[in-house]
Parts: sequence; C-alpha cells; structure tokens
Amino acid sequence: MKIVVVGATGTIGKAIVAKLEQEHTVIMASRKGADVAVDMTSPASIQAMYEQVGKIDALVVAAGAAYFGPLTTMTPENNEQSIDGKLKGQMNLVLLGLEYLNDGGSFTLVTGIMMDDPIKQGASAAMVNGGIRSFVKSAAIEMPRGIRINSVSPNVLQESWDKYADFFVGFNPVPAERVAQAFVKSILGGQTGQNYEVY
Amino acid sequence: MKIVVVGATGTIGKAIVAKLEQEHTVIMASRKGADVAVDMTSPASIQAMYEQVGKIDALVVAAGAAYFGPLTTMTPENNEQSIDGKLKGQMNLVLLGLEYLNDGGSFTLVTGIMMDDPIKQGASAAMVNGGIRSFVKSAAIEMPRGIRINSVSPNVLQESWDKYADFFVGFNPVPAERVAQAFVKSILGGQTGQNYEVY
Repeated sequence: MKIVVVGATGTIGKAIVAKLEQEHTVIMASRKGADVAVDMTSPASIQAMYEQVGKIDALVVAAGAAYFGPLTTMTPENNEQSIDGKLKGQMNLVLLGLEYLNDGGSFTLVTGIMMDDPIKQGASAAMVNGGIRSFVKSAAIEMPRGIRINSVSPNVLQESWDKYADFFVGFNPVPAERVAQAFVKSILGGQTGQNYEVY
Repeated sequence: MKIVVVGATGTIGKAIVAKLEQEHTVIMASRKGADVAVDMTSPASIQAMYEQVGKIDALVVAAGAAYFGPLTTMTPENNEQSIDGKLKGQMNLVLLGLEYLNDGGSFTLVTGIMMDDPIKQGASAAMVNGGIRSFVKSAAIEMPRGIRINSVSPNVLQESWDKYADFFVGFNPVPAERVAQAFVKSILGGQTGQNYEVY
C-alpha cells in the first residue's frame, strides 16, 4: 500500500510510521522536514501535496492544532485557530483527497478524549474532536468506490505526560504505540464510520 | 426571567416562544422581523444584539444554517457555510454573551439527529452538530457564576416532513412542540452539559 501520514514527525505520527514502513510505501507529510510539505490550514497547500504524491491507498492524519485556554477569556478569534487547524484542515484533506484515493482506500482522522471526558481549557479542542467524529460517521455512508473513513480518539500520551499532567488530572495516559495500533486497524482493517477510542 | 430566543420566527423558535411568553419576558431575535435583529455569522452583529438587550437570564438558539449536499461534490467553501453559520454562530453567541448573562443563567444551543443517525448529503451538518454537542459538554465544566449550558438535538420535524421526507427515509418525525419542551427543560431546569435528544 501507498500511505501518506500527515503529521508524520509527531509522537503519534512516528509510531504509525514505525508500524507500517516495513511492508508499505509510507510518505511522511509535515509542515517541514518530511518527504512532502503540507500546511493543513491551506487548501492550496493540501492540493499541492496531493498533486505531488499522486494516487494513494490511505491518507492518515496525526496532526492538527487546536486552541487551549480558559472558556471565560476565549474569543471568537482564539476558537478560529482550532477551526482552521484540526477541524477544517482534516475535513479539507478528505474533501480534496477523495479523487486521489484508489478504490477501496481509506482516510483515518484524529479526534481526542476531551470530547468524552472534558478538561478545563479544552472546550475549543473538544468541539473540534466532536465535529470530526460526527463528520466521519456521516461521511462514511457516502464514500464512493469502497473508500472507508474512520477516526482515532487518543487519550493523553505517556510520552507527553510530563508536559500535560496538570491539565489531565486523574487520567491514565496511554503509550503512542497503542494509539498507532488503532490507526493500523483503520488502515488495514475493513471497518468504516468508526471512532476508535484509545482510552 | 428575561429570555432571548435567536431564531424565534422559525418553526422551533415559535414553539419555544409559545411555551414561555405567558410567564417570562421573551425577546425574539432573528435576521429580520423580530424584536431584535441578529446575523449569527457576524460577531459584530452578535455584539450589537447583546448591547441592545442588556443583561439576560437565558440565551436560546433555534437557528443556524448548515450546508446539505453530496459528499463527493462538497468543497471546502460549501463546508464553510456550516462552519460560519450553525457552528461558529452558536459558539460566538456563547463566547460574546457570557458577560451579559445573569448569575445562574443559561445557554441552550441546537444540534440535530444527523450526528447520531446520518443521512446522505448530511456530512457537513453532522459535523456541526457533533461539534456543538462536544463544546457544550466541555464548556459546562468551566461556566462561571452558576451559568449552565445545554443543547437540544431534534429529529426531523413533523411540520417539515412534506419538504424533507425524501432525505429522512425511515425516520419518525417529531412535533416542534416536543422539541420546544426540551428547550424549556434546559432553560427552567437545573441540568448542565447535556444534549437532549428529541428522537
């Protein structure tokens, strides 16, 4: 399979690549420093990425910026960061990528535990996660040519625990390797319209 | 209570107003033809509405445009209609409205059944509904001064069945009056962070 991983240089992205690169052609995409450059916030950049890589079997997203901050001081502009990044960015990778996916190919997007188990300062990110989950569930019934679409919802990562423990009080962090397994299930399995919770 | 109903001239809005106007001061808000004008897609218009109505006890939304169309022809621009209307519009009514809500007041937003029970051509609308549901759940834990926030998720309405029956095959439409009851529960009840399904 020919698989593009957007966010390939991040913690989850690296774990996904490690699981796939032995048996598949993995193209690493990232804002910089990867096989191909892509800025998810720009439809033109997404289009250019697809033109560069051509036909593929799977598009995987392990990236997308979202705003974190107290609700009482959040502005429409703060919220826009989440919408332009993790929400529209992922949806546009699907909408603009459909014609580049081979028959029977797949999209795998990323959501996150905060939509189910909210944390302080996480309302904007929770919104994005919930939006992507519902988009995936609905888009799955309209995918042409046997193309599938799923999302993976990670808990906070063990690898990021030192940095984020204070925000995720009482959570049980998971290793990126377990999150990557859910991506592999989506890419190589047969299901569609699912949101795999790695909690 | 002093209650602002955005989308007061719509089918659900009218049913909400009918249930509240006897015992409360209801201010009807709409793009035009109501007590106060508001364009949800414009933060400036939302701000102007709040300045006009002043302090309130409840803000209710029964409005918000979303894009409907086949996934295979949906563009980033089509999707933007849903984001600017029902998603950002509702979130901005909350973010800009917080300081106008009296202690113990409430926000009630609107989602929709398509996020749980998807229909063809509904992926963009489903995304918005799921985004609002998760925003509400997360924002509830950070609301100051005892302010509550919930959403109501209506099935397709009996009143709109002639128009939409072909899109909602096999659905059991509900009367707007039942949907309005869920809004009343949110406004006058004590719960927060809920999405009331009227299916």
